[in-house]
Parts: sequence; C-alpha cells; structure tokens
Amino acid sequence: MPELKRSQRSLIIIGGHEDKEDDKLILKAVAERAGSGRLVITTAASEHHQELGDEYEQLFRGLGVRHVYKLPIESRDDALAEKSVKILDDAAVVFFTGGDQVKITSQMGCSPVCERIREIYETGGTVAGTSAGASVMAATMMVGGSGSETHRIGSSLQLAPGLGLIEDVIVDQHFAERGRIGRLLGAVAQNPRILGIGIDENTAIITQGDRKFTVIGEGGVTVLDAGAFTYSNLTDEETDRALSVFDVKLHMLSQGDVFDLRARRPRQQAAEVMEEEILGAR
Amino acid sequence: MPELKRSQRSLIIIGGHEDKEDDKLILKAVAERAGSGRLVITTAASEHHQELGDEYEQLFRGLGVRHVYKLPIESRDDALAEKSVKILDDAAVVFFTGGDQVKITSQMGCSPVCERIREIYETGGTVAGTSAGASVMAATMMVGGSGSETHRIGSSLQLAPGLGLIEDVIVDQHFAERGRIGRLLGAVAQNPRILGIGIDENTAIITQGDRKFTVIGEGGVTVLDAGAFTYSNLTDEETDRALSVFDVKLHMLSQGDVFDLRARRPRQQAAEVMEEEILGAR
Repeated sequence: MPELKRSQRSLIIIGGHEDKEDDKLILKAVAERAGSGRLVITTAASEHHQELGDEYEQLFRGLGVRHVYKLPIESRDDALAEKSVKILDDAAVVFFTGGDQVKITSQMGCSPVCERIREIYETGGTVAGTSAGASVMAATMMVGGSGSETHRIGSSLQLAPGLGLIEDVIVDQHFAERGRIGRLLGAVAQNPRILGIGIDENTAIITQGDRKFTVIGEGGVTVLDAGAFTYSNLTDEETDRALSVFDVKLHMLSQGDVFDLRARRPRQQAAEVMEEEILGAR
Repeated sequence: MPELKRSQRSLIIIGGHEDKEDDKLILKAVAERAGSGRLVITTAASEHHQELGDEYEQLFRGLGVRHVYKLPIESRDDALAEKSVKILDDAAVVFFTGGDQVKITSQMGCSPVCERIREIYETGGTVAGTSAGASVMAATMMVGGSGSETHRIGSSLQLAPGLGLIEDVIVDQHFAERGRIGRLLGAVAQNPRILGIGIDENTAIITQGDRKFTVIGEGGVTVLDAGAFTYSNLTDEETDRALSVFDVKLHMLSQGDVFDLRARRPRQQAAEVMEEEILGAR
C-alpha cells in the first residue's frame, strides 16, 4: 500500500447491501486499504456475531486480505476488555457490519476499544461501515424515524450521539430504497450547519480526512445543504404538522463525483478516474 | 359561491388517497367549488367505473353538492360521443379519479370531451384529479419509472403528453409514500424549465390560474427547481449510470404554504388563514 494513502485517514461509509457476489467494488476498496496490515471486522451492531463475522471474513480473505480478525463485542464488558483492544493492534482497517447503530454506541461509547479505533483512524487508518455501521460514523446519527413519509415537526425523528469520526454531517443509509429524504430534511432543518448525506444501497462515500469524499458504487448519494434555507416551520407549536422548509440545496452524486466538505461543493470526476484512484493502486 | 372565485380558474391536484372518512378536507375543497353548478366525476383512468363513480358520487353528495354527474369514458368512442359532452354542460367542476393516466389521455386526447373540459377550465371552472387524475393535469406527465431507487440516466423514466391544463410543471403523486424523488429529479434534469411538483398522499395543491398554488392536506409537497443547476451527467453515454445533478433547489411545503409559479418562490401562510380561504367561503 502506498505511503501516501496510509497518511490520509479515511472513512468508507456504505449505504448497506454492498455487492458481495459480483465485482464487489466497495468491499474491494475496503480490502485495498488493509494492505499488509490487519483488517478487523466488528459485529458490534449485530446479534449474529458468528455468522456475519464469518461471512465478511471469507469475503475479505477472498479479496486478498491476509490478516483478518474478528471483534464481536457482545456486551459492554467486551468493549472494556484488554483482549478486545489487543485485537485492534496494528489494524489498518476497522469494518463495522450492519445491525443496530445504538448497539455499537451504547456498548463501545467511551470505551478503550472505541478510543483505540479513533486512534487508528487519527493515525491514518481506515474505518469502514455498512448500514448501521455507516450511520455510526458521524457525531450525530439517525436512529429512528420512518421512511416513505413526510416528516412531521414534532414526531418520529430520533437522533443519538455517534462515534464522531466525522463532524458536521449526518449520514442516512438505504436512502432511496427506503424513501428517507423526509427524515433527512427534518434533521438538516434542525441545524443547517449539518450536511445531510443520504447513501443508497450498494453505494459508498470514501472520505479523505475531513476535506472531501468520493462516491463509489451503483446508486446515488444525496447531499442536502440547508445552509441557505429561508424558512422552516420546525419550531411551530403544532407538532403533527408536516415539515415546511424552503430553499434547501440538493446535490445528487453518483460514482466518481467528489464532494468538498469544507466548501460544501460537489464536483464531477470521470467514473473511470475514480476507479483507478480507488482500486488501481493495489 | 362568490363571483370572484368563479372568475379564477383552478386546478385541485391531489396526491392520491385523499381522506374520505374524517374531515374530508380536500374533497370539501373540491365540493366547495361546485357551488350550485354541476360536479362531473370522470372515471376515465379506471376500469371500475361503476364502483368508483358511485363512491365519489356519494362522497360529494354527502358534502352538499346537489348536481353530481358521472362520466365513465370506457372507450375512445365515449370521448367522441355527443352525449358525453352533454354531461359536461354547465359543469363547474370536473373531477378525475385515479387509475392509469394513459387511459385518460389516450381515450380523451384531442376529443370533444377534452375540449369541453378545457373550456370549462378556461372560463373559470375547476378541474380536480387524484393520483392518475393528478398526473394528467400538466403538459408532460410521468407514466412510469420505479420509486424507491436512484434514477438511472437512460432507464425507466417514462413521460407522456398530459392534458396540458398547467404548463411548465410536472406532477408526481403518492410522492413520499412511494419514494419518488429520484424519478422527479430525473425529469427536471431533462429540462430545468419544468418545475417538479411531488404531492404526498392526502395532500393537494390548489392553483389559481397559472400564477400560484396553495398546499392543503396532511402531507408535504416537494418542489424541485433545477433552474440553476450546474452539472448533470444526464447526456452521458453509459445509460445505466446513476444520475448526477448538482445544485437543485428543493422546497418542502406543507398546508397553507403558497408557491408563486412565475417567480418560482414559496412563501409561508398560516394554515388557519388557508383553511378559511379554501373552505370558509361556503
């Protein structure tokens, strides 16, 4: 793995249902970042530790990763245990499976395991996650709220503190498939500083530090920027009213597109260039 | 009915599944516009002429409309028949039920019945429609394309010419419920002149001529304005790529909000004011 890449800490945030059968593009991008280092799979979000851990282990081994380890985290005790921290020694990549994001944060939050993962990231490692493992990356995460309906002012939007590896964004997954734009709009209307990032299934964003991300995969990534919004009824008293919010900027990105997180601007990039950039270095 | 209102031709475009049990707010707004004139229900979109016609007849009679007529239109011959045109005599309101929008346009397009409906509208009448009956109002209508997925450049977006009672917009219905923002984005990216209007279930827009519309009902109305978009990959050659489009303006409107169709600007309005405006004149 080129030194340059190790020096750029990176998150690979996957909208769920990443391809595991065909070209496995997204998992390849995760595998690529392990290089000769460890790739640690944590099933903390799930209750199917054995099954899910084995499945991803096999996938990553199949993609050429030599040192694959599993970190089940079935309880808070596991997250506090020295042997759990040991498993993360020399990890280049930590991969969070899907499940329930609150299982991750309630068990891992403020634990030595969590500290170690942050350290791996801060020193140039990669933290990847799919579905629940995607939501958990940001400082604030979506943990409830229905899809496929209009967001109501006082209702079902439930947020919780996430791992905080990336600031000023909120990530939603299974985005187009579960019709989640209503709840993401509700979230960005609450605080326009936060960019809403909705990631479709079999689609991911790959961040480079806090500076930018690139889109990879089959679907789209919706970015909602309410920074210049002009009106919202969010603080109205009648909480069962549907949300109004005017002048939200929407960007729909697809594979290869890049988003500058500081300037809050998208830019295009030929999908082929990106494929080389992400995968060709191997 | 006040003279003023008769002089303002109006469309009531309903996102489907309007309330038929409780306060029936949207159907009340339709009924209100009949005044002492005829309300004609056309089931042209459906195959259940008897059942659907009877249901709406009962509903509108229950809401105080005296002169309710049914216009089944089961074939193109029906749309060409003199007796069909007769039914529309003195109609103040024409109401299109749901079903298949192409059944409406293929049977009615360029027929005396269609001409008569346009005349009713042009001379200050109201044309209302729900679901398929909503889509059919605009010059271009959505007739296919999946919901709950990312729009692909060359794929499933199917458009057809509608009745053309309102220009420069495209209407999509069952909007949040069927996760249709992807396909509406695809449509507005094709021609940013067109405003995308996505109407949720049990929600409607009430137009005043071509100038503005007001939102009524339980859900939201999403307006997509791609007028200032900066990039789209829509004309790329690889047609199975997901759509990219940058800098689309999104407005989420709820009951009471008004949208100025000429200035392409939303503005808020207390929901109570709107209820009085729409229903209080009775």
